[in-house]
Amino acid sequence: MLQAPPAIPGMREHEIDTPALVIDLDAFEYNLDTMAAKLAPTGAKLRAHAKTHKSPVIARLQMDRGAVGNCVQKVAEAEALAWGGIPDILVSNEVVGASKLARLCALSRISQVAVCADDEGQVSAIEAAASDAGIRMTVLVEIDVGAARCGVAPGPDAVALAERIAQSRHLIFGGLQAYHGSAQHKRTPEERQTMIGGAIDASRRTVEQLKQRGLDCPIVGGAGTGTFEIESASGVYNEIQAGSYVFMDADYARNLDAAGQPVSTFRHSLFVLSTVMSAAQPGIAVLDAGHKAVSVDSGMPTIWQRPDIKYVSASDEHGKLTVGSETERPKVGEKLRLVPGHCDPTVDRFDWYVGVRQGRVECLWPVAARGGVT
Amino acid sequence: MLQAPPAIPGMREHEIDTPALVIDLDAFEYNLDTMAAKLAPTGAKLRAHAKTHKSPVIARLQMDRGAVGNCVQKVAEAEALAWGGIPDILVSNEVVGASKLARLCALSRISQVAVCADDEGQVSAIEAAASDAGIRMTVLVEIDVGAARCGVAPGPDAVALAERIAQSRHLIFGGLQAYHGSAQHKRTPEERQTMIGGAIDASRRTVEQLKQRGLDCPIVGGAGTGTFEIESASGVYNEIQAGSYVFMDADYARNLDAAGQPVSTFRHSLFVLSTVMSAAQPGIAVLDAGHKAVSVDSGMPTIWQRPDIKYVSASDEHGKLTVGSETERPKVGEKLRLVPGHCDPTVDRFDWYVGVRQGRVECLWPVAARGGVT
Repeated sequence: MLQAPPAIPGMREHEIDTPALVIDLDAFEYNLDTMAAKLAPTGAKLRAHAKTHKSPVIARLQMDRGAVGNCVQKVAEAEALAWGGIPDILVSNEVVGASKLARLCALSRISQVAVCADDEGQVSAIEAAASDAGIRMTVLVEIDVGAARCGVAPGPDAVALAERIAQSRHLIFGGLQAYHGSAQHKRTPEERQTMIGGAIDASRRTVEQLKQRGLDCPIVGGAGTGTFEIESASGVYNEIQAGSYVFMDADYARNLDAAGQPVSTFRHSLFVLSTVMSAAQPGIAVLDAGHKAVSVDSGMPTIWQRPDIKYVSASDEHGKLTVGSETERPKVGEKLRLVPGHCDPTVDRFDWYVGVRQGRVECLWPVAARGGVT
Repeated sequence: MLQAPPAIPGMREHEIDTPALVIDLDAFEYNLDTMAAKLAPTGAKLRAHAKTHKSPVIARLQMDRGAVGNCVQKVAEAEALAWGGIPDILVSNEVVGASKLARLCALSRISQVAVCADDEGQVSAIEAAASDAGIRMTVLVEIDVGAARCGVAPGPDAVALAERIAQSRHLIFGGLQAYHGSAQHKRTPEERQTMIGGAIDASRRTVEQLKQRGLDCPIVGGAGTGTFEIESASGVYNEIQAGSYVFMDADYARNLDAAGQPVSTFRHSLFVLSTVMSAAQPGIAVLDAGHKAVSVDSGMPTIWQRPDIKYVSASDEHGKLTVGSETERPKVGEKLRLVPGHCDPTVDRFDWYVGVRQGRVECLWPVAARGGVT
């Protein structure tokens, strides 16, 4: 069931039906502009990760500011972007199964599409799907640069897989996927620098070994919101896959800069607007947003501009708040902005973004790839 | 975007596109029958909680076995059930906001609908909505029986609110909502008995005080899968709101019986079917099901009938597995059943149930109230 739109353009923020996914458009545009400005002097281009926003509308706003395209994790996300007019899409992930590969190949007739592999059997499966579809599919080799998840080892293993791809008449070798996910949320700049330093070394070494075998890397892609300034200055990475920067979240807000202060490059622009539905017990208020409205996998949400209120626990449809003083306890019907602990899965709870500027609803955008799990 | 159906009836389980929400129909029907058999000799009726399954198809199967109706937490869930033909629905929760109350009152023209309140201002708001709609709304008083979330104090506060409801010509006093959520997952039967003992005492006392004021309680409702046998034997509770029993999950599987063994009343019937998408690194395999496909708020999923494999961490679209021995490591393309840590929010990730019996797809049912957050 599609959720009903929770607002109409022109409404005041307090009139939005809750829980609702709200974008502060001023902060959001600041983030888009800031990323473009940060990357302009580097050799790297933005290929923003659409697994965060799941929206061809937002992807287009990123491309308007210089992004070369988007990346996604799932074929269903690629479909939502391609059907929404995005011309260049990288599935920065492995895709397994004949039906998914057939869908991906079909998409390549309307958009430039590429996919990753870390297994020779998978390269053969992509080759068969591309042959069946009568297209050539671009395939990147994913290398493990420290995340210990997907990816072959940098160096000879990666070169062997790249050669297997390059030798196929149904495939095109597209370069390296070299994302270090676990480095993104390391709290100190030193930790992030050390981990990404290793990723850069591994990528550089592999690029050089590929070059020795006559293989160029059109794409060397990776990086996220936590570390993109390091990769973009490396001279090795040429595509930056940051996604969360458009919205930020409570977990990214815990990353620190060299002065030990929260990194302030980007602003919080994404909120779950929520209503107090019960205040029957002293010291407690209960919101209408629990697990089904806000993701807690990276910690509880925080309350925007209300440090005196703590979101202490979530159940499926309730969020329990404790308040510092009874006089400031929010009343039944009062609306509060939650800053999600983790933006990507929170966005996936909703069918609609409500864009707000200075207290007034300006637009509604569909979360087009919501639930795109396949 | 509605997810594409991941299967066609008649397929083999291994042909289902993943990640997918799979019901083992034999285990599921066993659970339905077992609950009916457990409640038959008690004075209590089942009003199964549809926040678990979000499906009028499953609600009907529960009513076929004697349930008086269903309860839900949100108006959007009530809509999905009423539109699907369920004739008796209790919103076991507070509903705040004029637009939500108008929707609820509109529903009462096609189904018997009731709602809870724990605040006099809210009773007035429900009264105004009912008056506007030209209907009478049944309202239960929610009392806090230990969960410290919503609900007025048992006893005089509850009686005062009930009298306020009963005196309105637009409202009908429907009884007491007395659910103790935090007792459901206490691991030992002694802990559960103690907490529910308190809930029963508080409910009985309030029922008696209401009776002294001439108010009967048509419904005294509460209980969940972890404690329903205690409430149903109490002589006070007459409606049991268990939901998870139809599916069970890894968290409920940690509840113990008097012999210190996992409670075995119900069987696991709900799984997220998932495919290995990478096995490029020793000792590790990566599934295509992460935060977007399985809820981790009550712990990581377990792997069905594969205790040698651990699901150690989730990212948005990946689940990382470690394996006991390299020889038994699942291969790329292999499909595994995950037992979700928490069934309710996991169901909310999907648009379709795939019903499987003995390895073959028998049916697809929509998760009609998926995303019903309002």
